[in-house]
Amino acid sequence: MAQKYTIPKGTRDFSPEEMARRNYIFSAIQSTFKKYGYFPIETPAMENLSTLMGKYGEEGDRLLFKILNSGDFLKNLDSKDIENKNLGKVTAAIAEKGLRYDLTVPFARYVVQHLNEIAFPFKRYQIQPVWRADRPQKGRYREFYQCDVDVIGSRSLLNEVELIRIIDDIFKELSINVVIKLNNRKILTGIAEIINAPEKLTDITTAMDKIDKMGVEKVYEELRQKGLDEDTINMLEPVMNLSGNNTSRLNCLKELIGSTDAGSQGVQELQYIMELTTQLNLKAEVKVDQVLARGLNYYTGTIIEVVAQDVQIGSICGGGRYDNLTGIFGLPDVSGVGISFGADRIYDVLHELNLFPEEVLSATDVLLVNFGEKEAAYSLGILEQLQLAGVKAELYPDSVKMKKQMKYAHQKKVGYVLLIGEDEMNTGIYTLKNMKTGEQSKGTIVEILAIFNT
Amino acid sequence: MAQKYTIPKGTRDFSPEEMARRNYIFSAIQSTFKKYGYFPIETPAMENLSTLMGKYGEEGDRLLFKILNSGDFLKNLDSKDIENKNLGKVTAAIAEKGLRYDLTVPFARYVVQHLNEIAFPFKRYQIQPVWRADRPQKGRYREFYQCDVDVIGSRSLLNEVELIRIIDDIFKELSINVVIKLNNRKILTGIAEIINAPEKLTDITTAMDKIDKMGVEKVYEELRQKGLDEDTINMLEPVMNLSGNNTSRLNCLKELIGSTDAGSQGVQELQYIMELTTQLNLKAEVKVDQVLARGLNYYTGTIIEVVAQDVQIGSICGGGRYDNLTGIFGLPDVSGVGISFGADRIYDVLHELNLFPEEVLSATDVLLVNFGEKEAAYSLGILEQLQLAGVKAELYPDSVKMKKQMKYAHQKKVGYVLLIGEDEMNTGIYTLKNMKTGEQSKGTIVEILAIFNT
Repeated sequence: MAQKYTIPKGTRDFSPEEMARRNYIFSAIQSTFKKYGYFPIETPAMENLSTLMGKYGEEGDRLLFKILNSGDFLKNLDSKDIENKNLGKVTAAIAEKGLRYDLTVPFARYVVQHLNEIAFPFKRYQIQPVWRADRPQKGRYREFYQCDVDVIGSRSLLNEVELIRIIDDIFKELSINVVIKLNNRKILTGIAEIINAPEKLTDITTAMDKIDKMGVEKVYEELRQKGLDEDTINMLEPVMNLSGNNTSRLNCLKELIGSTDAGSQGVQELQYIMELTTQLNLKAEVKVDQVLARGLNYYTGTIIEVVAQDVQIGSICGGGRYDNLTGIFGLPDVSGVGISFGADRIYDVLHELNLFPEEVLSATDVLLVNFGEKEAAYSLGILEQLQLAGVKAELYPDSVKMKKQMKYAHQKKVGYVLLIGEDEMNTGIYTLKNMKTGEQSKGTIVEILAIFNT
Repeated sequence: MAQKYTIPKGTRDFSPEEMARRNYIFSAIQSTFKKYGYFPIETPAMENLSTLMGKYGEEGDRLLFKILNSGDFLKNLDSKDIENKNLGKVTAAIAEKGLRYDLTVPFARYVVQHLNEIAFPFKRYQIQPVWRADRPQKGRYREFYQCDVDVIGSRSLLNEVELIRIIDDIFKELSINVVIKLNNRKILTGIAEIINAPEKLTDITTAMDKIDKMGVEKVYEELRQKGLDEDTINMLEPVMNLSGNNTSRLNCLKELIGSTDAGSQGVQELQYIMELTTQLNLKAEVKVDQVLARGLNYYTGTIIEVVAQDVQIGSICGGGRYDNLTGIFGLPDVSGVGISFGADRIYDVLHELNLFPEEVLSATDVLLVNFGEKEAAYSLGILEQLQLAGVKAELYPDSVKMKKQMKYAHQKKVGYVLLIGEDEMNTGIYTLKNMKTGEQSKGTIVEILAIFNT
């Protein structure tokens, strides 16, 4: 018996069925990126640890998969570090490379390294796996794909509008109803300033960001724990409870925080984006969400998050503008804006709503049954004709029992089965069976080709 | 100034231009695989080292990239192993996972692990990167893609014929003239038996395999070094010097080694494949090559190798039949046959022969020049109409100098530039510039759409 061999926890094999569904998602995403003039790049799975370390916080450093140096990896090791269990120093001595943790840092490194070859504004997309030594759990993997699209080297808000159109196009194509939530980091800054707690910006936004999950009261509780007094929390109240449509929300925000530089600018930017967006024929609902934060330390302007309307699953796409991405690699003042699509969650949404089109799974149009050596040799010619006409066809390789061949056709969700036995060889009239209806028809190769080409 | 950040040696970034060319190759390969009823799978980048170790020989074990365990990786370490510099034991204690070295072993593991979900014969393809800690040199990388296509669970030689058709289709589509060389491991066994040196099979075939590179005399010299006497070498002479067309080669082989079981069977198998292949309309030259060996220990039947006719670059595709791939994972007697396409070498061939089609590189059909905020807002509507009609269009996001926008259009190899300034907004007659010819024409949106849709 076969021994049990498995794969590392948190990683996955993708079967042909899963690949077909995943490729359905990736091609919707990719073809849209292309339509808007974004080009793909790829970076290596391994980056130097000097590129990765310190970019994701202490926790991130811990979650990087490190690769043991090849050859004599012990040569730089100080045995004292082993004795003292100094994991950091030991790691530094025996591992120079790590697996990429996201696509953002490698992209920043790419831009800096290839500065002179790039046509700016640089519109690139990147669809590649990333690795994180996170504790695996439902929906969280140690290897997963990210689909990032960014434009770097342009401060124009038209880029934001374009990304919103891209989001709309992709989810329209996938038949997922979505809400696109928009905010601006400067609005958050304005809020923190107006309540006289600019130094609490991170605490406030981290707490506010959880309003959907926890409700307003829990948010206030968290803010109290973070040291905000009741007066300050009371001042937050109007911001937290903004209601009405986007225009009235924006007008309220202007009144509330328009007196601060940041707040005024944030509202203005968001207003401009909303104006242009409203003119477009978007299917998605676009919504101003003044508490949306998403990894605040990173974004400097627009913040974008997309949620599915018919499934409770959290964000399926998100991103924003960053003014200093390449700064970590010594190239300051390059503004960019980008979003990332969560392929795994989109997969779950499509699966849960039963939205994968049936034809995604069937790759073979017709299977030629194998009746023996002579018939198979004859069938090869028919196979060639079918394939030349663009029909996805295959000949069962072994002349085994019909039942086994039909089972194979069923398992592979083949549309038709073509029977070419001795009689058929003699007459040139073949039997075609529709695997869905069970219906059989007879015809010449020309007649059969006509069936597939309608 | 930006610091110099680089990537690990032997790895590569792929720019948009390189990606476009690589994707041209991958899609030719992939669409052909699909046409023949092969389905994709993917396996994780990381496998347990217990899955990988011992499968590629001692050298292979050394070339595996090992991943440091996460958390307290020192906990299983015996400090004596450090003192004794026992790299093997230290590695085993601190690393459980490694990056895949090829796609074959993960595929075998996949088949064994998912045995009950698979429809046999299992026709799968897999296009993913692999990693080897080899010394990097020209054309040899530490990260590179493999494109494998295999059918497992069928002994029928029709599979070999199908793979030959796939090879022919792919290189026809890529406009590369190729020779497909065929041999059979059993022919090699027959040769070793007939010269009474069956125990020297590996030595003989390893030497013979080099005949193209070194010439006959050097092969004999190597055989002498391996302990073959002159009489035995003389007996090899007729096999080495087979000439004529495939039929006469096969006939000679039959005479020379037909008296051995293995030889007779090998010749018969190859003859059958050649018969069926000759009936097909192949563009490639198919050639019996009785000295072709290719990683002999692995293959048990047909051996396939493809070389380009117009470039000296070695094999660009190869593979063969294996009767015991899954045996290493405890599942014996599952026969399969497969080939692997060398994407990097195919890239080099296309590059050297200047065979990449020009349209591969241009992703954007038309760039809308940005003349200012008002014009840009207006242009958004035009952009939408163009894109809805299937035209790949983009609006330059910033209203910067014309010169800069034109430079961008040049760099991105955009086909046309569309000018919508104030006059054009007023009249609804836009100016379209062909970037290749420099020609300008004027027209309404309907007239311009007509240009793109012809």
